[in-house]
Amino acid sequence: MGKYDDLAALLLEAIKEGGYLKADLSSIPVGISNRHIHLSQVDLETLFGAGYQLTKTKDLSQPMQYACKETLILAGPKGTIEKVRILGPARKETQVEILLADCFKLGITAPVRSSGDLQGTPGITLIGPKGSILLSKGVLIAQRHIHMTLDNAHNFGVTDGELVTIQIDGLRGGTYSNVLIRANNTSALEFHIDTEEANAMQLASTSKITITK
Amino acid sequence: MGKYDDLAALLLEAIKEGGYLKADLSSIPVGISNRHIHLSQVDLETLFGAGYQLTKTKDLSQPMQYACKETLILAGPKGTIEKVRILGPARKETQVEILLADCFKLGITAPVRSSGDLQGTPGITLIGPKGSILLSKGVLIAQRHIHMTLDNAHNFGVTDGELVTIQIDGLRGGTYSNVLIRANNTSALEFHIDTEEANAMQLASTSKITITK
Repeated sequence: MGKYDDLAALLLEAIKEGGYLKADLSSIPVGISNRHIHLSQVDLETLFGAGYQLTKTKDLSQPMQYACKETLILAGPKGTIEKVRILGPARKETQVEILLADCFKLGITAPVRSSGDLQGTPGITLIGPKGSILLSKGVLIAQRHIHMTLDNAHNFGVTDGELVTIQIDGLRGGTYSNVLIRANNTSALEFHIDTEEANAMQLASTSKITITK
Repeated sequence: MGKYDDLAALLLEAIKEGGYLKADLSSIPVGISNRHIHLSQVDLETLFGAGYQLTKTKDLSQPMQYACKETLILAGPKGTIEKVRILGPARKETQVEILLADCFKLGITAPVRSSGDLQGTPGITLIGPKGSILLSKGVLIAQRHIHMTLDNAHNFGVTDGELVTIQIDGLRGGTYSNVLIRANNTSALEFHIDTEEANAMQLASTSKITITK
């Protein structure tokens, strides 16, 4: 049997090198985010009290990330949005990810940005049970992106930071361009979009999408 | 001058036949709809009182269509949505066009349908100032479509009822497939989508789109 095992291993290697395993591209799961907030520990304590720790209610698909029991009120010059979910754990900088529709409700103009790219983003008022914060920056509309491992990226023939196009089938189908590849070894394979992007293409958390590049 | 006019006419004809005027394809304006209601006269009178007439507040881009002062409450098994705008004039059948996000709020599953195609659609409760109606059908999510004249259709090389793909540029760009052509001589050229479809692609009422087919 050794001969056949060697042959099988060689064939698999050849197939991988030839890129034929890209047929696998049809199987990227979809993760849909509503508006949410990531807090720094300092801001968390201002809003909820000294020494406060977030209460996990649900693990998210990305390792170590979770939804919390705690919510905040977002207050802008034109309106407020209540019960905006906090995601844990605490981060280096506070970041508020909203929907484009929320910009109209709140009266602010947020740019489409990659997570963590906060330079020049607008601020907002966060209202918690023990205090409020007037952020000077940190509000963005998340740029659609695909989390993956470096191995995934190699198999898909893409690199971290690359922009790709993805294909969605169905009556409300189409393509989304400028989808950012975020590849590192702490990510689970998942295409991240917000609820408006999901609804516009009738995507659900059970949907799968394809990279067309 | 007669000779030159004849020459110009011939050139124009040649250009039209050659399809060169399809360069015009880049100039389709975008019309964005929020959830709204079209009422039959019978249902209007049940909700607002006998003999009631709608109050126009704004002409819409499609001839004879207008937004009204009047709004209704939509009530589903899981929740309600207030201040849902009525569009006039009264139609043959009552039709409620909602966003996919509204399905979750209301607790109903509406299909993506072309306007007027109400067979098998779910119902909903409409609550007005003088009465309520439990509709047995009429709730849909509008299939994206392009209104145009028959001349427009000829110039674009498309026909009434055809499904086309449209291209949207920009950081949140992409394509929408299965866009229905609705061509007749009472329509103004306009690509109709709902607010979720507009926000997902960062389209505004000042945007222009292109048919790629």
